[in-house]
Amino acid sequence: MPHAGTFPYLCGMSALFNESPKLTPISQVGEQGLIRLLTQNIRHHQKGTLLGAGDDAAVLEIPAGEQWVVSTDSLVEGIHFDLTYTPLKHLGFKAVVVAISDLLAMRAKPRQLTVALAISAKYTVESMEELYRGILTACEQYEIDLVGGDVTASAGGLFIGLTAMGSVPVGQWVKRSTAKVGDLICVTGDLGGAFVGLNLLEREKRVFKSHPDVQPDFGDNDYLLQRQLRPEARVDMLEVFDRLQIQPTAMIDLSDGLGRDLEALCMASEVGCKLYEDKLPIDAKTMSQALEFNLDPTLCVLSGGEDHELLFTIATSDYEKVKNHPDITVVGHLTDVSEGMYLISKGGNAMEMKQRMYVPE
Amino acid sequence: MPHAGTFPYLCGMSALFNESPKLTPISQVGEQGLIRLLTQNIRHHQKGTLLGAGDDAAVLEIPAGEQWVVSTDSLVEGIHFDLTYTPLKHLGFKAVVVAISDLLAMRAKPRQLTVALAISAKYTVESMEELYRGILTACEQYEIDLVGGDVTASAGGLFIGLTAMGSVPVGQWVKRSTAKVGDLICVTGDLGGAFVGLNLLEREKRVFKSHPDVQPDFGDNDYLLQRQLRPEARVDMLEVFDRLQIQPTAMIDLSDGLGRDLEALCMASEVGCKLYEDKLPIDAKTMSQALEFNLDPTLCVLSGGEDHELLFTIATSDYEKVKNHPDITVVGHLTDVSEGMYLISKGGNAMEMKQRMYVPE
Repeated sequence: MPHAGTFPYLCGMSALFNESPKLTPISQVGEQGLIRLLTQNIRHHQKGTLLGAGDDAAVLEIPAGEQWVVSTDSLVEGIHFDLTYTPLKHLGFKAVVVAISDLLAMRAKPRQLTVALAISAKYTVESMEELYRGILTACEQYEIDLVGGDVTASAGGLFIGLTAMGSVPVGQWVKRSTAKVGDLICVTGDLGGAFVGLNLLEREKRVFKSHPDVQPDFGDNDYLLQRQLRPEARVDMLEVFDRLQIQPTAMIDLSDGLGRDLEALCMASEVGCKLYEDKLPIDAKTMSQALEFNLDPTLCVLSGGEDHELLFTIATSDYEKVKNHPDITVVGHLTDVSEGMYLISKGGNAMEMKQRMYVPE
Repeated sequence: MPHAGTFPYLCGMSALFNESPKLTPISQVGEQGLIRLLTQNIRHHQKGTLLGAGDDAAVLEIPAGEQWVVSTDSLVEGIHFDLTYTPLKHLGFKAVVVAISDLLAMRAKPRQLTVALAISAKYTVESMEELYRGILTACEQYEIDLVGGDVTASAGGLFIGLTAMGSVPVGQWVKRSTAKVGDLICVTGDLGGAFVGLNLLEREKRVFKSHPDVQPDFGDNDYLLQRQLRPEARVDMLEVFDRLQIQPTAMIDLSDGLGRDLEALCMASEVGCKLYEDKLPIDAKTMSQALEFNLDPTLCVLSGGEDHELLFTIATSDYEKVKNHPDITVVGHLTDVSEGMYLISKGGNAMEMKQRMYVPE
């Protein structure tokens, strides 16, 4: 994916550390009042959404000849996000990206979404409206319908549960367990940026905590912040697969880092792999900022996670179809399971891939 | 619903207050290890479940001529349940009941379920296995497939997010907004029991907290404990509607108490109502225990909630079909919206139903 340039949402990023929003306690509008406020701006894009939010359940249809694909995810405060530097609007957008990436990894088109929120007393009506603005912005962009949900109190922190639903032509769905020895390993976009972006935010958080009057300094790193705070889902790849006439032999989304996700694919498919360090797509910003942090860029790719790109395998006969695509990189190939999982370093050394190497010091 | 007699799960209820389970920290098996343990006993009942848990998403099909129905719910520790007296196995069972009741209220057949868990560090592997035993017991009983989910850490407490999916023949789904003036108001089962059961548990919790050596005394109230701790979903009503050839004009599940849920139905349908106090189905146990607590049994019905029965309306021409059914009670009728919402007391007085009357002191 090319640089996004100056990312509009991140203009005035420094303001994030000094927000002073209006403060209406949720108790003032009540749970039902809050739900009305949050859902009043929902617009539907899918003609299969026969009944959306507001009743006991939603009623949905998919096109004839398609099958239903469903995935559930959660984002938990203090575990998956830190509100010191995560704007709630970005968090809402990212939550949708996280949820639909699992459908994309099945080659399914995302169509509908439900959101369950548990909210502690520190949150205000305005903050939840901001979260929903992000969710609905993503729904607009990806043409997904928010068809239901649940809002409840929580004894501590914010919990966001999402279920994404979509569909795929009969039999066209792609598992992670169907890759074959010899298949080529492909990834979309560039990797490691979300993790380096996280490190940037954590550094500025430390500075801010000890010197609240010093404004954060993110330098020229909007791209890395965007990769962490407001990633994009690779919905575009559905069309790319169609146009290039590729049926991936296996696929998984890159949420836990290339190391873990490739291992999951290899274990499910009972194959080994050779991954080539010099093929890994790393953006120049990711590379230079990782080095500034004394982080090994390759480890950022293997263990960083949250890139929300796609990892897929193709038959070698499909190589010509992908080799010139700017958003697809072939990074290795699959081997017999007895050969294990190896990273071939730039120097030509074969290093066995182990869980521990995915966690940078 | 008839009394369940001595409810097997509640034998040795007193032990709940003194559990000493084995304690394996979740960190010992890891998130992936825990997921493997929890999902190893999943069995599928639905032939439409083409791919279940274990990949990025599930792939599902419904019978030709049916439409999808989807609903999301959450149960949050400290808000929806108190683990002092809630056995985790019951909690798992109840979570499924809560989730599928929304589908039943659309006249949809529940078929699949996803579960997202956020777990704080105080929970053990054994406690999560117990929760899943309850979830899977409910799945067996109601022939639902657990097709996916997510397990993550939480900074505080247990959060259970559930999405229930099912299907309904095209056009047969029932909204809450389609009731007409003159329609009869019906409820299934008996009401108020879950709330009185909650009061029993709260009383014994208070005793236990001040005198940990005194065992809880629930008397002869297994039925009330069951209504609170391990309610049943009215899946049987799908067949009843078919057999009696009734198409409800509107329907909602009784989760928030008859007062609030009837108000939601009336507001959505833009009608008023007359509800007759002497018609309310209250079990003898509920009645006597409510009186022992100095609670008005009628208020327990209106405001208690968690009964997970169904509230539906039918055309008056369908009265003959329901009048002798042991699980259906006609409790009133709908009026013009200008006439407001009234409870007609046993003494014949008309009392306007207001939100505040649903909350017992």
